[in-house]
Amino acid sequence: MAQLSSSVNPVPMLKDELDIVIPTIRNLDFLEMWRPFFEQYHLIIIQDGDPLQTIKVPKGFDYELYNRNDINRILGQKASCISSKDSACRFFGYLVSKKKYIYTIDDDCFVANDPSGNDIIVIEQHIMNLLTPSTPHFFNTLYDPYASGADFVRGYPFSMREGALTVVSHGLWLNMPDYDAPTQLVKPLERNSRYVDAVMTIPKGTLFPMCGMNLAFDRELIGPAMYFGLMGHGQPIGGYDDMWAGWCVKVICDHMGWGVKTGLPYVWHSKASCNRLENLEKEYNGIFWQEEAIPFFQSVALPNECTSVQQCYLELAKQVKEKLGKVDPYFIKLADGMVTWTEAWEELNTPMATQN
Amino acid sequence: MAQLSSSVNPVPMLKDELDIVIPTIRNLDFLEMWRPFFEQYHLIIIQDGDPLQTIKVPKGFDYELYNRNDINRILGQKASCISSKDSACRFFGYLVSKKKYIYTIDDDCFVANDPSGNDIIVIEQHIMNLLTPSTPHFFNTLYDPYASGADFVRGYPFSMREGALTVVSHGLWLNMPDYDAPTQLVKPLERNSRYVDAVMTIPKGTLFPMCGMNLAFDRELIGPAMYFGLMGHGQPIGGYDDMWAGWCVKVICDHMGWGVKTGLPYVWHSKASCNRLENLEKEYNGIFWQEEAIPFFQSVALPNECTSVQQCYLELAKQVKEKLGKVDPYFIKLADGMVTWTEAWEELNTPMATQN
Repeated sequence: MAQLSSSVNPVPMLKDELDIVIPTIRNLDFLEMWRPFFEQYHLIIIQDGDPLQTIKVPKGFDYELYNRNDINRILGQKASCISSKDSACRFFGYLVSKKKYIYTIDDDCFVANDPSGNDIIVIEQHIMNLLTPSTPHFFNTLYDPYASGADFVRGYPFSMREGALTVVSHGLWLNMPDYDAPTQLVKPLERNSRYVDAVMTIPKGTLFPMCGMNLAFDRELIGPAMYFGLMGHGQPIGGYDDMWAGWCVKVICDHMGWGVKTGLPYVWHSKASCNRLENLEKEYNGIFWQEEAIPFFQSVALPNECTSVQQCYLELAKQVKEKLGKVDPYFIKLADGMVTWTEAWEELNTPMATQN
Repeated sequence: MAQLSSSVNPVPMLKDELDIVIPTIRNLDFLEMWRPFFEQYHLIIIQDGDPLQTIKVPKGFDYELYNRNDINRILGQKASCISSKDSACRFFGYLVSKKKYIYTIDDDCFVANDPSGNDIIVIEQHIMNLLTPSTPHFFNTLYDPYASGADFVRGYPFSMREGALTVVSHGLWLNMPDYDAPTQLVKPLERNSRYVDAVMTIPKGTLFPMCGMNLAFDRELIGPAMYFGLMGHGQPIGGYDDMWAGWCVKVICDHMGWGVKTGLPYVWHSKASCNRLENLEKEYNGIFWQEEAIPFFQSVALPNECTSVQQCYLELAKQVKEKLGKVDPYFIKLADGMVTWTEAWEELNTPMATQN
């Protein structure tokens, strides 16, 4: 079996093909710790707060920074589809990037160590996850069969061993786990110290809670579905931006025959905002709405005629309006946002625009 | 969230509710290493070869031993459904056990160590897996939410947090991975040294390759579907016994709303038979047939009227005969074996029989 092992074939670091997207409301001192790993990449920083504030970026980094005024200027009326005052705003970076891959990370995430005490090179692992196939159609009990020292186990059909194209790599978090507000309230002291040395494919037909804290994806393929919704300022919901994107992305990947991986690499998450009651207020509606949204996404069917991600996404927007619009008028507005997002994507990512 | 943690609540070891089933062709010296962990349990040993040979069991173990003559005597004509000269014969032990739980292990599996060098207490972990719920309806990115120090992550629907009843716990193997014959031929030296510290639920709708080497299950609930098929002596196929059971079990668990877990605990697998060409001969037909059988199991639908495992199993046998019978007449014989197995199960496991 072919293997992609970092010791045998060095992982290509894709310096000219990957942008790092960071949403923030403050100075990016956290980049100092990431310097050896991020300095060779281009950063897209999205300022998630008062545009009059100045965000300081440590010297030596190659970056572009957008605040709300920039977003309004670039998108005009279409800026209405971009969340403000919520880390959801990061998806504006996906729109303006010209690269094939995106890695996005929160500014309260730091370099984690593996059990041997070595720094985890997150981007290397994400690239390895994205460049090796996924296995969404049958479960491999020894996890990623393309990892070094692993393979498909007995009983894995040979016709499925070429796998599927991987378009999303969902990394995890040591220290502060990504818990919802009620769980944070109930378990204020719980920390994640379990390093699970595995990468796995989320099977076809199974939804998962996609967290945007430590996430890489193939922008060229799945970017048009990476809309983080309408959250935060002026909206009745926050904190569900990445979840919304995850449900849409997974349904579309299943339709397109693409794979989504989760597991390694870990970052060290040291929560910036520990105001758990504030989080509860923000997530409150989402806690109820997810009970309706998840069954919707579990049963949604995309017609065969949808052969591109954009077509799938517009079809999904239509069904969101029809079915979830009955749950709350917010979903009608969100469905409109999905359509506007698709228009903005087409405007900024036509062949002319991407030739740059 | 409620937790079952071995440090907080000691795992009940279920001494009177669990039998250990071991198929073997030789003296059971391997039990010496397992003495501290197995001695308190009742063993059911199934002799998988010449019934005239004597199998030596180390002193101090509480066991019953069945050879082919015993099987013929107990089951009469129905003995035709029990494989002979193949480790598949182990499933006779599931039939004659009177306990709620079964743990089955191969005689070339030894006690493994965790990364801290401690002996892994396999039965304790299997019991913990079986006594805590599964999460087949939505993926939890931090793996088993019922494990100590873990929980459901943000975005996991609250209505699904009670989970589902767990009926199968599939443990893994360090050292010799469970590879098929072609992979063994290609990678004779590959060993599994990756200790993945996780237990996870195989999602609903996803099939997996179930290995019988280190497996625990709730005999009372799923036992009637744990038929390891017709393999070995006199059959055109071997080595697919546990795979066959796994496909049937998973489809039925999905229908019944029950969960199947995989991951911890590990055993140290030191392959008894290393004749890889012989394995290829044995598995040869299976390699082709699994390409037909898996799509069959992926699309099989059990009607709502099937409300017991036996009903599901007989329905499955009917569909196997109809659909896979076209692939090879072997499947017609196998479907008949499935029906005979169900009859034997009912004969030996009527309320009268189990009262014992």
